[in-house]
Amino acid sequence: MDRSDLITMAEWHTTVTPPALARLLAAARLPEPAGHRPAYRTLAGQVRTLVSEGRLPVGARLPAERELAAALTLSRTTVATAYEALRAEGYLHSRRGAGSWTALPEGARPPSDAMHPVPPDEQDQTLDLGVAALPAPQPYLGEAAARAVEQLPAYAAGHGCYPTGLPVLREAIARRFTARGLPTTPDQILVTTGAMGALHLVLRALLGRGDRVAVEAPTYAHTLQALRLGGSRLVPVPHAWPGGPERLPLWDVAEWQRVLRGAAPKVAYVIPDFHNPTGTLITEEQRRRLLAAARAAGTVVLVDETTAELGWGSADDAPMPRPTAALDRGAHVVTVGSASKLLWGGLRIGWVRAAPSFVRRLAVDRVYSDVGTPVLDQLIAAALLGDPLPDVRSHQLQRLRATAAALTAGLRERLPGWRFAEPPGGLCLWLATDGVSGSALAAAGERGGVRIAAGTRFGSDGAFENFIRVPLTVPAAAVPAAVERLAAVAARAAAGEHWPAAEDRPPLAV
Amino acid sequence: MDRSDLITMAEWHTTVTPPALARLLAAARLPEPAGHRPAYRTLAGQVRTLVSEGRLPVGARLPAERELAAALTLSRTTVATAYEALRAEGYLHSRRGAGSWTALPEGARPPSDAMHPVPPDEQDQTLDLGVAALPAPQPYLGEAAARAVEQLPAYAAGHGCYPTGLPVLREAIARRFTARGLPTTPDQILVTTGAMGALHLVLRALLGRGDRVAVEAPTYAHTLQALRLGGSRLVPVPHAWPGGPERLPLWDVAEWQRVLRGAAPKVAYVIPDFHNPTGTLITEEQRRRLLAAARAAGTVVLVDETTAELGWGSADDAPMPRPTAALDRGAHVVTVGSASKLLWGGLRIGWVRAAPSFVRRLAVDRVYSDVGTPVLDQLIAAALLGDPLPDVRSHQLQRLRATAAALTAGLRERLPGWRFAEPPGGLCLWLATDGVSGSALAAAGERGGVRIAAGTRFGSDGAFENFIRVPLTVPAAAVPAAVERLAAVAARAAAGEHWPAAEDRPPLAV
Repeated sequence: MDRSDLITMAEWHTTVTPPALARLLAAARLPEPAGHRPAYRTLAGQVRTLVSEGRLPVGARLPAERELAAALTLSRTTVATAYEALRAEGYLHSRRGAGSWTALPEGARPPSDAMHPVPPDEQDQTLDLGVAALPAPQPYLGEAAARAVEQLPAYAAGHGCYPTGLPVLREAIARRFTARGLPTTPDQILVTTGAMGALHLVLRALLGRGDRVAVEAPTYAHTLQALRLGGSRLVPVPHAWPGGPERLPLWDVAEWQRVLRGAAPKVAYVIPDFHNPTGTLITEEQRRRLLAAARAAGTVVLVDETTAELGWGSADDAPMPRPTAALDRGAHVVTVGSASKLLWGGLRIGWVRAAPSFVRRLAVDRVYSDVGTPVLDQLIAAALLGDPLPDVRSHQLQRLRATAAALTAGLRERLPGWRFAEPPGGLCLWLATDGVSGSALAAAGERGGVRIAAGTRFGSDGAFENFIRVPLTVPAAAVPAAVERLAAVAARAAAGEHWPAAEDRPPLAV
Repeated sequence: MDRSDLITMAEWHTTVTPPALARLLAAARLPEPAGHRPAYRTLAGQVRTLVSEGRLPVGARLPAERELAAALTLSRTTVATAYEALRAEGYLHSRRGAGSWTALPEGARPPSDAMHPVPPDEQDQTLDLGVAALPAPQPYLGEAAARAVEQLPAYAAGHGCYPTGLPVLREAIARRFTARGLPTTPDQILVTTGAMGALHLVLRALLGRGDRVAVEAPTYAHTLQALRLGGSRLVPVPHAWPGGPERLPLWDVAEWQRVLRGAAPKVAYVIPDFHNPTGTLITEEQRRRLLAAARAAGTVVLVDETTAELGWGSADDAPMPRPTAALDRGAHVVTVGSASKLLWGGLRIGWVRAAPSFVRRLAVDRVYSDVGTPVLDQLIAAALLGDPLPDVRSHQLQRLRATAAALTAGLRERLPGWRFAEPPGGLCLWLATDGVSGSALAAAGERGGVRIAAGTRFGSDGAFENFIRVPLTVPAAAVPAAVERLAAVAARAAAGEHWPAAEDRPPLAV
């Protein structure tokens, strides 16, 4: 090992206290497999799961062996042996006298539902149900890219850096908002590097460490993790499920009112349009009531519209509720959106819609992070969001609709005990797994050739243990195989065989 | 004003204390113009300059009028009138009972030397000497872009998100390091969204608020500002200038040793290869000695190689010093680089070279900021960093060389009192302005049709007041006009006319 490897250990400053780790371990407890198993293996497996799922950040400093042993009422030898096993697998780095830090082994995937670090032609044979991302709509993308290259010379004469975005794209995005019922001018738009780039900028501008943020429970896993890393205090507001898992949830507006009044969070983060992970669509009336409560509390409402144009169900014929920011101009609303789902994630085009003064503020901030979004991708997005959009959109929606039909039919047949609602749009099904641990399913899936997003990643403090999220982004033709693999893994996980003998293999190794 | 404009004011959490603002104002004090001038105008002008130059962040909360009046021994009426003037110009937003926050007026440029928010065809007639960025090398860029579009279909079938970067580009960058004398494997490379994206990720991973960072003085203005925004404590280490402003500076290695031993900064940020803004090239011997001192202090050396391949002077025939990371494998070195200068800023391609474990750690972090860099731009960069690179590079170097020759000759003729060294490469000249305030030159330049980067932006606490940085990125043919404008502005600034009657016009308005 290059000595500069030590950087990872020496310089990171998140320290996990023994009680905090004990809590995380308790939340991550998996059903015990049949037969005897040494305690150190259980502990090592739990830490590995926490790191792999992103619930324990990479680079976090773990408690000293003695402290953790005391907190868990285990022997120090057990903890020392577990740490040794984690070191051998690459999940832990230690330096004598300094401590131990979590790590990812060589070749491991980042704990994420949105990427592989390998190109399509090098992918392994695992079926990836962790990712909710569509391929690019072809031939539209290729045609727009070729046209953008023709426009490039005019821009190549300049320096190519546009912190607020290319005017032509800001205009296209503003027109799109206006067409959806929210009059918007280009100076209200900031082009960002994907929706995550938009969230990163907005959260950094609005929040300091320790600030409270109200979130739907469940909600988008990456936003939760971004908030955790920024030191926010999460205030989860559970969805109301009056019809059980087979009906779509709603907001519990009374609970939102209570939280906004009582906790006065700085920010409330919501996904009202084809929510991730449940797919639900919130009514205008509920939106209005939440906005009124947020206005009274002085809370900024951060609306994530990444999936807002993905209505593929029968409700697609019904009129869509207007964008949330249109419903109470007196409230403080910041909207983020993305071309990653409607067009392609490989473009990395997202945006913020906010007051012009806040857009200017964010443009200054980003000069010290990514400076701007590449020119060519902005030209492509500007073209596709114009005249080709109706065709591109119906191409993508048709794909989602076909997969949803195949998946719901397949699940009902092969896994009749699992319960779910059919959403009117969005990218996912949210499945109640009939009491089987989602974490156990994820672990078993790594061995069974199917990557699964455990429900716990969409909540805090171990909530949603008996749920998983399944994306609608696999091709419909691949759905039967996906369902077969899910059923096989479910049978093994229910039998407690989620962590079989070949334990040395890291669960997320490529 | 949309009520959600208020977000800018209510939610930002930097507060400037009265003594801190008094210090900034003292450092920003301009030569008094001839004739009487009300005190409130002087104060408002100074605050405006601090915001425009980025020394006072946008969104910072200013002291209450009474507190600032006490700190500056001015009347409260003077401060109130100054705040009122700043509000009228859009540099300040206030809310009764809550406070006042700095802002940028509509149409103002971000305080930055690397961008315009307008496309080339909409630029005003101002000659921009604030930006150090080259146009794209044509026809190379267009040809590579067309080829990349042909490769796109293979990637369009996937989701397009690559947190560590496309393998083909990681390989190309690793080969480039190896060719420069630093053997490198692709797993040591993270592709980022520009060099600023690389710095953002690395600084966030290595530093917490209040951590000390040693920096060269002067150094790259944006890194200084990024460090300030992150709450770092800057420890400037002045360059040694044994030959005066007409000779290139060196590192003051004894001072570096003292600082590293005494302050034990977490990070030392250096630009050894054609330093920005001075253009100096540090010897292998000085690099080795700094690395040894950093190793002993446990300091990570963050090497910015953005300009490392831009040797256009006679020294280009002499062998280049090896990359800093090659000179002491026992030291903790992280290198950041960029294709923005060699290829084009509009691609937004940068990179980190570090230990594989640290690269993996950064890849996880970026999932919560920009997720990845767009695919098409990575394909273009991978192509251009391969076989076309010698031609592309000599195209860019030839351009820099021609501008440097024209600029040095023009300055010697028209501004003989200004002193500077001729660097062997890089993007800038660092000019000692014969006692004229660089801030005054910048202010006068905004009215005189030339945008100028004041020296103070490259230092902390008001250092380098009598310097400016001039980029070598204007076309050689435009140099005579640039020098004429500089000379005219210098004459006005020296006469104290830097802030004439039409004061209501914001200095950075487009």
